[in-house]
Amino acid sequence: MKKFEEKTIETKPVYDGKVISLRVDTVKLPDGNTSKRELIKHPGAVAIIPITKEGKIIFVEQYRKALEKSIVEIPAGKLELGEAPEVTAVRELEEETGYTAKQLNKLGSFYTSPGFADELLHLYEAVELELLTETVAGDDDEFVELMELTLEEAEALVKEERIHDAKTMYALLYLRLKHASN
Amino acid sequence: MKKFEEKTIETKPVYDGKVISLRVDTVKLPDGNTSKRELIKHPGAVAIIPITKEGKIIFVEQYRKALEKSIVEIPAGKLELGEAPEVTAVRELEEETGYTAKQLNKLGSFYTSPGFADELLHLYEAVELELLTETVAGDDDEFVELMELTLEEAEALVKEERIHDAKTMYALLYLRLKHASN
Repeated sequence: MKKFEEKTIETKPVYDGKVISLRVDTVKLPDGNTSKRELIKHPGAVAIIPITKEGKIIFVEQYRKALEKSIVEIPAGKLELGEAPEVTAVRELEEETGYTAKQLNKLGSFYTSPGFADELLHLYEAVELELLTETVAGDDDEFVELMELTLEEAEALVKEERIHDAKTMYALLYLRLKHASN
Repeated sequence: MKKFEEKTIETKPVYDGKVISLRVDTVKLPDGNTSKRELIKHPGAVAIIPITKEGKIIFVEQYRKALEKSIVEIPAGKLELGEAPEVTAVRELEEETGYTAKQLNKLGSFYTSPGFADELLHLYEAVELELLTETVAGDDDEFVELMELTLEEAEALVKEERIHDAKTMYALLYLRLKHASN
């Protein structure tokens, strides 16, 4: 859909980094006036809800420099250039948790911040987990600690704001709804 | 929590815009090595789930330049400097929908993209809506079209990817769970 389309009059690249890039577009609005749009390009990401055979969910705690604190999230990672999201999902699950999944169910996808960024996040549920016998090397600048929690334990961390990000809170609602439907 | 804290060695401001700013930090990792972090500062935002007396949900369709398409979302907007989220929520509801709410329930908050941005989104449910007799002027560079939909109609738009952002999909799961619990 292109309703209320904002046509680009001018585009100014500002920054091109290792993860994101920033440009500022001058746009023509539907009423003929102009405005500026500050826009972040992001490669896209995956997030995985790993469910153990005991029915627990595997989370990772990691430091988020943007927030200057560590939070507890479901495993996630950025897409490599040209990589299919399913491939990223398997890789990130193995790197971050040490488990692989016999079954990966796609739950959907969403834009995380459509007001300024094009990051699209693909969400999966990973079941029938098997512990890998060898560890898989991940990014050498990522430090994570694993936590296996019940849904109730995870919901308690939401109240403490230790779980506090969109994808993880979406995942918990999804699991709560699944329980309610069973 | 400061687990795996990444201490800032150097911070380089790159861009300071009307909505977001970008800086690149050089950080010291827990293992003593260094890395770069590309970080977006954002003022924070609110989103509102407006429920009409007929039980329909009010959505807005708007063009998202970052995606180069229009999508259907719950009403939302950025915090003004120093503004309490509840005040932003009432203002954005009035500006975008022409309704005001007798009751505003806070549902929680979440970081939309903690990997690179500090945007914190506060989510509210607005009930007992009253149509305003005068229109409230909003941002003059925002063009939105209102849609009143049932939950089922909105869920159909998720399948068509016309609803495709984190806050709106979270809102639909929340409403679906609420229905399931009643």
